[in-house]
Amino acid sequence: MINLDYDTLQAELRSWVDECRPYSREGETAGYIPALGRVPGDILGAAVCDLKDRVVEAGDTGHKFTLQSISKIFSLILALEDCGPEIVFGRVGMEPTGDPFNSIAKLEFTRPSRPLNPMINAGAIMICDLVGGGTAGEKFRRIRDFVRRLSSNPHIDVDPEVYESEKSTGHRNRALAYFLKDTAGLKGDVEEILDIYFKQCSLQVSCRDLAYMGAVLANEGRLPSSGEPMINPFYCQTALAFMVTCGFYNGSGQLAVEVGVPAKSGVSGGILSSAPGRMGIGIIGPGLDLKGNSLAGRMLLARIAGDLNLSIFA
Amino acid sequence: MINLDYDTLQAELRSWVDECRPYSREGETAGYIPALGRVPGDILGAAVCDLKDRVVEAGDTGHKFTLQSISKIFSLILALEDCGPEIVFGRVGMEPTGDPFNSIAKLEFTRPSRPLNPMINAGAIMICDLVGGGTAGEKFRRIRDFVRRLSSNPHIDVDPEVYESEKSTGHRNRALAYFLKDTAGLKGDVEEILDIYFKQCSLQVSCRDLAYMGAVLANEGRLPSSGEPMINPFYCQTALAFMVTCGFYNGSGQLAVEVGVPAKSGVSGGILSSAPGRMGIGIIGPGLDLKGNSLAGRMLLARIAGDLNLSIFA
Amino acid sequence: MINLDYDTLQAELRSWVDECRPYSREGETAGYIPALGRVPGDILGAAVCDLKDRVVEAGDTGHKFTLQSISKIFSLILALEDCGPEIVFGRVGMEPTGDPFNSIAKLEFTRPSRPLNPMINAGAIMICDLVGGGTAGEKFRRIRDFVRRLSSNPHIDVDPEVYESEKSTGHRNRALAYFLKDTAGLKGDVEEILDIYFKQCSLQVSCRDLAYMGAVLANEGRLPSSGEPMINPFYCQTALAFMVTCGFYNGSGQLAVEVGVPAKSGVSGGILSSAPGRMGIGIIGPGLDLKGNSLAGRMLLARIAGDLNLSIFA
Amino acid sequence: MINLDYDTLQAELRSWVDECRPYSREGETAGYIPALGRVPGDILGAAVCDLKDRVVEAGDTGHKFTLQSISKIFSLILALEDCGPEIVFGRVGMEPTGDPFNSIAKLEFTRPSRPLNPMINAGAIMICDLVGGGTAGEKFRRIRDFVRRLSSNPHIDVDPEVYESEKSTGHRNRALAYFLKDTAGLKGDVEEILDIYFKQCSLQVSCRDLAYMGAVLANEGRLPSSGEPMINPFYCQTALAFMVTCGFYNGSGQLAVEVGVPAKSGVSGGILSSAPGRMGIGIIGPGLDLKGNSLAGRMLLARIAGDLNLSIFA
Repeated sequence: MINLDYDTLQAELRSWVDECRPYSREGETAGYIPALGRVPGDILGAAVCDLKDRVVEAGDTGHKFTLQSISKIFSLILALEDCGPEIVFGRVGMEPTGDPFNSIAKLEFTRPSRPLNPMINAGAIMICDLVGGGTAGEKFRRIRDFVRRLSSNPHIDVDPEVYESEKSTGHRNRALAYFLKDTAGLKGDVEEILDIYFKQCSLQVSCRDLAYMGAVLANEGRLPSSGEPMINPFYCQTALAFMVTCGFYNGSGQLAVEVGVPAKSGVSGGILSSAPGRMGIGIIGPGLDLKGNSLAGRMLLARIAGDLNLSIFA
Repeated sequence: MINLDYDTLQAELRSWVDECRPYSREGETAGYIPALGRVPGDILGAAVCDLKDRVVEAGDTGHKFTLQSISKIFSLILALEDCGPEIVFGRVGMEPTGDPFNSIAKLEFTRPSRPLNPMINAGAIMICDLVGGGTAGEKFRRIRDFVRRLSSNPHIDVDPEVYESEKSTGHRNRALAYFLKDTAGLKGDVEEILDIYFKQCSLQVSCRDLAYMGAVLANEGRLPSSGEPMINPFYCQTALAFMVTCGFYNGSGQLAVEVGVPAKSGVSGGILSSAPGRMGIGIIGPGLDLKGNSLAGRMLLARIAGDLNLSIFA
Repeated sequence: MINLDYDTLQAELRSWVDECRPYSREGETAGYIPALGRVPGDILGAAVCDLKDRVVEAGDTGHKFTLQSISKIFSLILALEDCGPEIVFGRVGMEPTGDPFNSIAKLEFTRPSRPLNPMINAGAIMICDLVGGGTAGEKFRRIRDFVRRLSSNPHIDVDPEVYESEKSTGHRNRALAYFLKDTAGLKGDVEEILDIYFKQCSLQVSCRDLAYMGAVLANEGRLPSSGEPMINPFYCQTALAFMVTCGFYNGSGQLAVEVGVPAKSGVSGGILSSAPGRMGIGIIGPGLDLKGNSLAGRMLLARIAGDLNLSIFA
Repeated sequence: MINLDYDTLQAELRSWVDECRPYSREGETAGYIPALGRVPGDILGAAVCDLKDRVVEAGDTGHKFTLQSISKIFSLILALEDCGPEIVFGRVGMEPTGDPFNSIAKLEFTRPSRPLNPMINAGAIMICDLVGGGTAGEKFRRIRDFVRRLSSNPHIDVDPEVYESEKSTGHRNRALAYFLKDTAGLKGDVEEILDIYFKQCSLQVSCRDLAYMGAVLANEGRLPSSGEPMINPFYCQTALAFMVTCGFYNGSGQLAVEVGVPAKSGVSGGILSSAPGRMGIGIIGPGLDLKGNSLAGRMLLARIAGDLNLSIFA
């Protein structure tokens, strides 16, 4: 595996986690969602899954956490499969932005009003509107089932406490959604669309789940276990491209320069990374840096990518 | 070469240029710089250079054009070699932006005021301030000589007509530079720094020159001809990462999704692309799309990258 | 009256209305609120009330219309009476803005987030939060009763059709309110606060009602009929100052320069004007200019103010 | 005079200055223009001139200071006299703004690009372009001579030290001017236009000079001494309207609400105020508040306006 045998990689991953663990206490958990703010900040764990379906884990991989923004990748892919790129990118742009993930100002200055990309909250909310399904409930179940299939984990479901917490405090997302309703043609009922969004963010996963899903993306959309095609390869590339240009909020450019692997973070402290043709990586580290990315998790990703030469720019 | 022999690639490239040529009439030349506005819009040409220094050309590759924003790549690398990333990225950010390349508004809203990245004009002007050299003249000569060495073409020099045209109409760049002087610690004399910038933009090259330079970037900084190291491999990756996140102005995200190779465009209609481990590509097509990128050139790049499987996301 | 006897003024007002009537067809009614969009655009009428309670009317003064943004004046005064300026202006700023009345961007860029003034929608929504009352229903009734007392018209009430129309289409206002909830300490329940806002906007009045209310403002807060004090004189001046700096959306500066009397417009086409020490004026003309002010109504106001020398700057 | 005899007013003004003097130490002088930063901050003085040309002074009225932004009033009036309102307001808007006086962002977002009003720096620079005169030198001399005539002081001239200081540090103004050159049709040579602007800002005056000029504005454009018409009464009203809507930078709205007299401040700490039909007021107090207005001077103006009932809203 990656020029390393299984046992060596296992030992290496363990030492990298140990090395980065001291930084797990430096970040802050996402206090603006109370249920996330209560998680201990010093957790750190990682799982790696290669394209032959071999998994290595180290650190606190027993810790479950919610997908949060990582879910944006999967609802985007599903919307692409359901509507095709022409419709999807007629409603949501493809360009990265230097603005924060929850910014509303650009929606006002852009005419026609269109979220800049599907990784900022406004874009992800619009994507929920585009996912196929006769009802909001069905749209959500399709997203959940897609995540279950990609991770080969049929038990993934909503963390009810986090979901309630998001729903009761998500006023900024409500502002974004009503703005989209007013200016950008959001079709569904705002509270119903937001319900899909809050639920997809609240899907509870493990590092192993993320590593599996990352491996599918790294494998041109095929399950490493069976080779079964799960995602149109072009939408797979689309997702990886967005992970590079806007996967780490407004720290994406720095990640591209310093680490160079496609990755998507969530405010739970989760990171899903995918090195095309190589492997999927799942990381958890709830302490966040100022831009909302896992502080120790980002360091751990840099260490893994550096030592295994995963950069797509080298 | 790339699973294709030389003759096959030669034939392929010719057919791709022919295929894209009709689109060369659809764009608009950059009328805001009079000397660029006068160039015929329907030119189209491309050169490809692999890592064994073999070059294939097709179309109007005899046409010379100026580097314009493509030069930003090389002054950035030189500033990194001269000052190191800590100083460079203390003065210029690493994040892509959804704003136009000549936007000034973000400079006002960002505190401390710092151009968002080295590919927008404000960032590139700041980079000129950081390139080593006792005088503005020396700074520029170092940039020019660096471009000459990377392209193995000692004859590259300023196109005096374009340079005069930029200098006399570059009021937006003056506004950016004086703003940086006021708020972001630009050290040098504004007109002297701008003179470096206008001159680097006015360096006259051919598709072959761009293809050579792209091949150096694709080759971890080594000249394909001799293997001689020209660029620190890490700065090479840095440049390629910026080409993906912000190489095509505010069409960069779309290029990443749809084409997936690092590329930098200029308003002359030039495109330098670099597929890591594979090849360098130089394209000219002066007719621009609405975002300032070569319209037919972009199509040709997509064709080349698609047929030769160059995407870094696959 | 105003150096003019009653009959002369009556004749003059009639001729000014006739003169401006052709322009009543040039504007557009506010189509974004369907119930307003259906009103005939070519209505024009005006009433003037001097400080001795004498009223002159001309044109279509039988037409009833809703207060819309004119109501912002009265909820502001009530909030000032209830909480005092320190609390009110700790939550809402005092500065005019060049932005549209429904803009959200400044809320994002201002820290602490605070609507720039009480005349833009965000500010007026915040003011509804500050008006005294144990429930949203009571807050609204206090606003309605205040308007009834100032206009000496106990029959003023909500136009149910307009109210329903605003409630069902007010997504931009919802976006503003949720944004305020998230960043600016809006205390009440968002939908309840918006309900107050939609209802105050839907209060149905006549030109005569506006003229009466304008006369109270012009009379240092006393009813012209009885001399009874209704408003603290300082809050009266506060309201008049806001009418000058931000009463006509982002056409306020132009009105100050060209007309020079305090005035507040609404998207129903209503205008309430108040010339301190002189008179109150009520105008209706549903056709709006590009900034959302009554087109013919504004011309009529200019005519009245010019001929009667009402400018506060002369 | 103002229902007060001369001696009483003299005594009152003295006591008001004494009362406000403690606050003169609280502000900060404008350090970004070094020559202004060196002035002692605790100076405070005022002069009042009624419409019968009677002047009362108190405090440090011997202190000379530069007009700075107060000059914008006079170049605007001159441009109006030279070109008429249609041309002037085709190039510069009439709307107040919540943005800082030296903001550039709105120029980028407004199409066609037009400074929002003549009181922000961008607008004032554009106005210099419009003042009549064959050369920049002549334009400036016409502004200076106009100020001399309005103040009946033929000795007013540029403070060379302040002028040099502004010229050598005015990079933000250069950024604004080059931006206007690029996008808003500034006709003259940028450095020449800026030279006019820096010189008009550097005109050295006394409180008495300001009080005289304020009295002309309060007197419908006639010299109080002779009744000689100096300014078209309509342009006089225009100037007073701008003083209310944007005379105190982004503290203008608050001044209108709390004080209610037209006034224009400069970063030298000078304030020119004009109560229509009543009097002109000149104040100096170099310590500035956070918005760039004289801190103690503003308090003194509030005291004078309050005690003499000068508010235009009462």
